[in-house]
Amino acid sequence: MTDKLIIFDTTLRDGEQSPGASMTRDEKLRIARQLERLRVDVIEAGFAASSNGDFESVQAIARAVKDSTVCSLARANDRDIARAAEALKEANRARIHTFIATSALHMEKKLRMTPEQVLEQARQAVRFARNLVEDIEFSPEDGYRSDPDFLCRVIETVIAEGATTINVPDTVGYAIPELYGNFIKNLRERIPNSDKAIWSVHCHNDLGMAVANSLAGVKIGGARQVECTINGLGERAGNCSLEEVVMAVKTRRDYFGLDVGIDTQHIVAASRMVSQTTGFVVQPNKAVVGANAFAHASGIHQDGVLKARDTYEIMRAEDVGWSANKIVLGKLSGRNAFKQRLQELGVQLESEGEINVAFAKFKELADRKSEIFDEDILALVSDESVTSEKEQFGFVSLAQHSETGERPEATIVFTVDGKEVRSSAEGNGPVDASMKAIEAHVRSGAEMVLYSVNAISGSTESQGEVTVRLQSAGRVVNGVGADPDIVVASAKAYLSALNKLQSKAERVAAQG
Amino acid sequence: MTDKLIIFDTTLRDGEQSPGASMTRDEKLRIARQLERLRVDVIEAGFAASSNGDFESVQAIARAVKDSTVCSLARANDRDIARAAEALKEANRARIHTFIATSALHMEKKLRMTPEQVLEQARQAVRFARNLVEDIEFSPEDGYRSDPDFLCRVIETVIAEGATTINVPDTVGYAIPELYGNFIKNLRERIPNSDKAIWSVHCHNDLGMAVANSLAGVKIGGARQVECTINGLGERAGNCSLEEVVMAVKTRRDYFGLDVGIDTQHIVAASRMVSQTTGFVVQPNKAVVGANAFAHASGIHQDGVLKARDTYEIMRAEDVGWSANKIVLGKLSGRNAFKQRLQELGVQLESEGEINVAFAKFKELADRKSEIFDEDILALVSDESVTSEKEQFGFVSLAQHSETGERPEATIVFTVDGKEVRSSAEGNGPVDASMKAIEAHVRSGAEMVLYSVNAISGSTESQGEVTVRLQSAGRVVNGVGADPDIVVASAKAYLSALNKLQSKAERVAAQG
Repeated sequence: MTDKLIIFDTTLRDGEQSPGASMTRDEKLRIARQLERLRVDVIEAGFAASSNGDFESVQAIARAVKDSTVCSLARANDRDIARAAEALKEANRARIHTFIATSALHMEKKLRMTPEQVLEQARQAVRFARNLVEDIEFSPEDGYRSDPDFLCRVIETVIAEGATTINVPDTVGYAIPELYGNFIKNLRERIPNSDKAIWSVHCHNDLGMAVANSLAGVKIGGARQVECTINGLGERAGNCSLEEVVMAVKTRRDYFGLDVGIDTQHIVAASRMVSQTTGFVVQPNKAVVGANAFAHASGIHQDGVLKARDTYEIMRAEDVGWSANKIVLGKLSGRNAFKQRLQELGVQLESEGEINVAFAKFKELADRKSEIFDEDILALVSDESVTSEKEQFGFVSLAQHSETGERPEATIVFTVDGKEVRSSAEGNGPVDASMKAIEAHVRSGAEMVLYSVNAISGSTESQGEVTVRLQSAGRVVNGVGADPDIVVASAKAYLSALNKLQSKAERVAAQG
Repeated sequence: MTDKLIIFDTTLRDGEQSPGASMTRDEKLRIARQLERLRVDVIEAGFAASSNGDFESVQAIARAVKDSTVCSLARANDRDIARAAEALKEANRARIHTFIATSALHMEKKLRMTPEQVLEQARQAVRFARNLVEDIEFSPEDGYRSDPDFLCRVIETVIAEGATTINVPDTVGYAIPELYGNFIKNLRERIPNSDKAIWSVHCHNDLGMAVANSLAGVKIGGARQVECTINGLGERAGNCSLEEVVMAVKTRRDYFGLDVGIDTQHIVAASRMVSQTTGFVVQPNKAVVGANAFAHASGIHQDGVLKARDTYEIMRAEDVGWSANKIVLGKLSGRNAFKQRLQELGVQLESEGEINVAFAKFKELADRKSEIFDEDILALVSDESVTSEKEQFGFVSLAQHSETGERPEATIVFTVDGKEVRSSAEGNGPVDASMKAIEAHVRSGAEMVLYSVNAISGSTESQGEVTVRLQSAGRVVNGVGADPDIVVASAKAYLSALNKLQSKAERVAAQG
């Protein structure tokens, strides 16, 4: 046992599995770099065997990230594990995370296997993985609802085969802190070789207790790794929030007595990047990263409240990277200043060509908007057109008009495989008309399941960032577009979503 | 001690104190009625002495609500308590909730009082209140950070004076479940007359553990009342979420062994009403009420996941009021069907005149939109113009145009104290141009600190609901507007925010 708490981030794997949160390789790479800046100990980069796209993302992250361990999920079979090892080949530090369900319900209904078969498969999987990579994590899926006797046998077996981390997921978010902490404590006490592995917690937030359960697993159970995601992103109610668990351990060091390696000053930037990339908003009253999380961040001067800040604040906003919106660049800023700011923001574009495209977009924006904030820059590089290689659809121009009593209309010019197309339509509003104009030509038949807009830096003078979520043939994608004109931003987001619908291959779903 | 857990909702008091979440009397009344439908045991309706507006809200709720106890906050002084009693005069069941800070930090920095003075003021306050109302709750503010010896003296004293509920707030969200539970347990064991009162927990979510802390206060500490808010609304990271705490107690009845009286089928409607009214979005991965909280609610058919629903779901979406978006009304629906649906949604308009205005708006909407969802109806009655009496600004019509390469422009016609005004402006986008056109005439000088849009039922064919948050002279207000045309919705929201800026009087801030 160590006095360090290992932070294992699974934003790019369990977080990305959330319906609508799928990301491109470049988006994942950008977030992985931000996670490295945060000094996350382990980055779960994806599930290499689930699709070629996931394989390429894990591979790209394994190449790019130097300081954090890079991990891939793999089901407990040789093919999955070999793919994971292949994707991780160039990593400085690689981990394979293999899993198989151990609860009666999952074994019977999902796997259709007997407990003995599951035990044997777990043993074989870890044995196989251990020959490829030294750092092996094993998860008994739905572990918290598994029979403890059986679970002890499985875990003892995989530790004997060389698993170095044992992760006990509360897959369905059913746990209570006291019970979960004692569950892990009992496992560790009963399993003879339990001290040969680091124990890990992985909690879901269905009852709103993922953070407290994780911390009980640490304090009562003796776990020394927490699996978590930025903004608590994840399926259903999401995973344990990285920002909350880290700030709880730091703020209550008197109780936990543990070190965490996270550089907390990058937390807010990471939160914004994940929110902007996935289109999953962070509610104002979200702990640590919500817009209202710190009293003074809201800009209010309520009588008496600010007399002494520690009267109401137990953390400092600066410590997690909140600062007043700073005007960082303007019309006169040059290419070097722009490039440097990108670096400071943790954005590394792949080539000079991409930097040139981004800089051209920056100058165009600066012509229309006098003050450029960090959020604008992040939105600008989130814009698909900057980093995309071979996109099917591209925005060119738009004209729209609406007037009370008349039917709103829009005409849009966009490219399809490089060729310009012009299309017009009417709609319930100018945004609806723009999207109908695109659909009139594309005929994707996709259903729009979400549409939302956030002004990037508060006011309508700033850029609007639009998220469009499309669903087609069982797949869900989010497109994001930014522009000072909300109708243009909407059209860009719609085209971006169409591009994702085209490019995303089907892939295997995994649960953690 | 009883085996029933009392649910005390403070959405309208502690929730409303959140910067930007202020509500009008009518909005509060609508939410109070929904809370009554939820079978909340105690509704904290406001802080009567803080402003005339708050007094009127508490009074209106005390008159309207029959089944729930209605409570008003009051500082520990005779004037506040008398105002609270006056506002509650017509309540079926009334409670006064009086508080004074007991932590060294708060006594010294905020109150500038000695502990003995605080003790004496608490005693006098409860004694005075007890002569006006039988049901008295006392809170030692920042109780969890108070010296336990002093806290014991204060609590013993107020119970002796007749306080019937003792609430121990973790005002700054600093607690850990195990520690908070034991803190309350120790108080209850040490205070000789502790069994004469019901104990209550009030937790804030700064470290993401408000729900777990509250439940530890119940399980370990023996508390039998939880103070909470819909969506966890509240200052900074918010309060304990009603929906999470209730569903945890119901789902884990095996552990808690407690009954809660909440009719959970109304939870999602309550969540939407609070979110629509305040403009505080609920993030998709929010437990229980987030759009993704239930796997199948997202409409995804992931292979294997839906084979057996309880493989991944511990609660049923139907039990908290999630259902497929139902087309409830259309063009041909009559006034009676509309009125009945309003009732089913828990919306009670004050007069036939208001129903007529709402119905006219409904018909107008049905002309433009073939399918009317519950969300549309809620947005329609949330629209200020339905329920407002004497508003300064009103929307009449708008025309706007934008085209790539040109400066977007808008012309808006609106009323100022009943007189029509026409104003035009250019802007960065059509929304910006519309707001600049309004400002060109009004010159409020308010700063826009938030702008967001959500499509009410997913697609852009539906209405867009816009929230505009304005800040002026230290006050923050949210305006909400809905329309199928996003630019029109934005203009309505801006005018609504201006109306609130005019009407909201300054008031005293309290912390819980």
